This record gives sequence, structure tokens and C-alpha cells, in this order.
Amino acid sequence: MYEGPIQDLIDELAKQPGLGPKGAQRIAFHLLAVESKDIDRLIAALARVRDDVTYCAECGNVSANALCRICSDARRDATKICVVEEPKDVHAIERTKEFNGRYHVLGGALDPLSGIGPDQLRIRELLKRLATQEDGNDVTEVIVATDPNTEGEATATYLLRMLKDFPGLSVTRLASGLPMGGDLEFADELTLGRALSGRRILA
Amino acid sequence: MYEGPIQDLIDELAKQPGLGPKGAQRIAFHLLAVESKDIDRLIAALARVRDDVTYCAECGNVSANALCRICSDARRDATKICVVEEPKDVHAIERTKEFNGRYHVLGGALDPLSGIGPDQLRIRELLKRLATQEDGNDVTEVIVATDPNTEGEATATYLLRMLKDFPGLSVTRLASGLPMGGDLEFADELTLGRALSGRRILA
Repeated sequence: MYEGPIQDLIDELAKQPGLGPKGAQRIAFHLLAVESKDIDRLIAALARVRDDVTYCAECGNVSANALCRICSDARRDATKICVVEEPKDVHAIERTKEFNGRYHVLGGALDPLSGIGPDQLRIRELLKRLATQEDGNDVTEVIVATDPNTEGEATATYLLRMLKDFPGLSVTRLASGLPMGGDLEFADELTLGRALSGRRILA
Repeated sequence: MYEGPIQDLIDELAKQPGLGPKGAQRIAFHLLAVESKDIDRLIAALARVRDDVTYCAECGNVSANALCRICSDARRDATKICVVEEPKDVHAIERTKEFNGRYHVLGGALDPLSGIGPDQLRIRELLKRLATQEDGNDVTEVIVATDPNTEGEATATYLLRMLKDFPGLSVTRLASGLPMGGDLEFADELTLGRALSGRRILA
């Protein structure tokens, strides 16, 4: 055990995901050595996240304002909504630079064993967004980009059931298959099976 | 890029050792989801380390008081001083529960290429501690526990030269050899060589 304040900081740091006692100790000793203004900056960043970050009223993404940057950007295509589980999924898709539509963050995936049903996700808000579009701005495509695991697939199936009767709306799902740069012989059976059943016609 | 406060926090976290952008992002999103009192506790722990942690006037270890817990503990054997590079080395030796003496933290190891000479380390303070002991409390052993690498070995050699003329003082060095639980065939040549040259007589 270290002396009071140091051990307290190690304990608080060790609660963060991906940091064990060793990693927490390493950061604590780093912070003991830096100038106090460096700690000030970290404290200020934590306080701003605590005080200023809210959720976008439209898409549910984390945001510094009532509407997030994407929802308040008129250049983004409002006819396409990409549905994801978590705010970090928005970031992952933005990094591809392949999508210019808007997002809808569910806040998780269906997982009845953990008590997460449709009412715990922002599904009602999605249905409302689809119903209340002004003329000419109708949503024509919902891309279901939940994770390719049991919970994400269940969520996708549920969403398809809810959305399939909206007139003029196509519901799509991200392709499953071999990861780019991967090696066919190391792919698991499930992924390889998906890649086969989803094979594209080249010629 | 995330919105302002989130990206700022990720940037600050990513400056910590052992945390890359991915790890920093993971912690930032964890902190977005926790209650604000959890962030308060982390902020308070950081502020206490910034404001309350000082260095022990005697041994140079990090401490919440002018004298650290070990130097102010009369039950610790003041005739033995274990010299280490960093405060975390004190913790490592304390964990063994094999040492009941006191410590001296150098604050690093000799490394001329990085501009760290004897004057940058707390060597003068160590010599003063050895010279100014009250009667009956003379230091009889200095255990040099610097790291078993180039800088640590150079520091140990330097300390031996400075200390060898103190009357009635023995200077010792931590044993080098095979790590316990290790595998002989996987030991590097240097370690195995040290283990051979430092072999003990069993019978």
C-alpha cells in the first residue's frame, strides 16, 4: 500500500476499463512526476465531460449541444439513417468516410438476460423520427449497423420486423464476411459461412 | 474526431503512459456512462495527488507528510539503507516483506547520454545520511538495489566507489540470477551467466 493520496489515485484509476493495478500505478507515478498544470488540464477535461456532455435530442449520440454536430449539419443526407448500438460506433463509421447520412444511437442491443428489452433502447425515438419527417425529407433507407453478434443480430431482426411496413423505406444491414487484409485460412467458420452465403457476382 | 469535451478528455488520457488512443477512448466512454459522483472521486484523487504529495525529507520517497511512513516508523531498522532508483521500487521491495530497514530513493540512475550525472541524483543526500547518524544508530549496510541494466549497474559501481571508504559500512548488491518460477532454457545468456558466476555453495 502506498501512502494515502497515492493509493487513492491508484484505486480510482484501477476502476477504469482496461487498467489493472499495474497500469493504474504506472499512470499515478507518471502524474506524481509531471507539472501540476498537466494534472490541472486532466482535471479540467474530466470536469467538462461531467458537466457539458449531453445526448443529442435527435439521434441520441453524445454531444456538447442539444443537437449533435451531425444532426445539425444541413449537408448531411437526412434520407438515410444508420442505426448503431453505441456512440463509439458512430465514430467508427465516420472514420470510413463512406457514409454521409445521419445516425440513430440505440444505447445498446437487445439482451433479455441482462434485462435489456426494446423499451430500454431508443427504438421508440427511431420510429418517431421515421414518422415525423417533413415532405421531401422522408427517410428512404435505414441501415442497421448493430454488432454482428447474438445481441446485435437479435436487435437487427427486431428492427426489421418493426420497420418493414413503413411505406417507401428500405431496411439494410451491414455486410458480413471476411475482414479486409485477413487470411482466409484463419477465418472462423461462422464468418466464412457468411462470406460464402453473401458472395457477390463479379461477372 | 469527437465533439470538443470528449475529444479533449481522450487527448488528455492518451498522454498517460500505457494508454494509446484506443485505451483513452475506452475510458472516456466509460466516464460518459458513469454517475457524476464517480468522476468527482477521480477528480478529487487527482487534486489530492497534485496538492498533498511531497517528497520525504529523509529518503526522497513520495510521501503525504514531511517524513514518509517508513522513515517515521521507529520499528524500522535504521542501520540498513536500501538504495533504489524510484519510489515504485520501494513498493516492490516492501511487497517482499523481507526487508525491515529504511530506503533511499535516488530519483533515477546514472545516464550521461540523457544528462543524468551524480548531481542529478540524490547521492549527496545519501552521503549526508551516512555521515550524520547519532551514536548507536550508525548505518552498517547499504544495499544497492538499482535496476540490473546498464544505467543501474553504472550507478551501483559509482555508489560502491563513493561508499567503500566509510568505516564499518558494508555495501551489498541485490543478487542477479534466474527469476524464480522461470525456465532455464528460456533465460537470456546474460542472466544465465550471472546465475553461474553467482552460484551458491549448497554442501
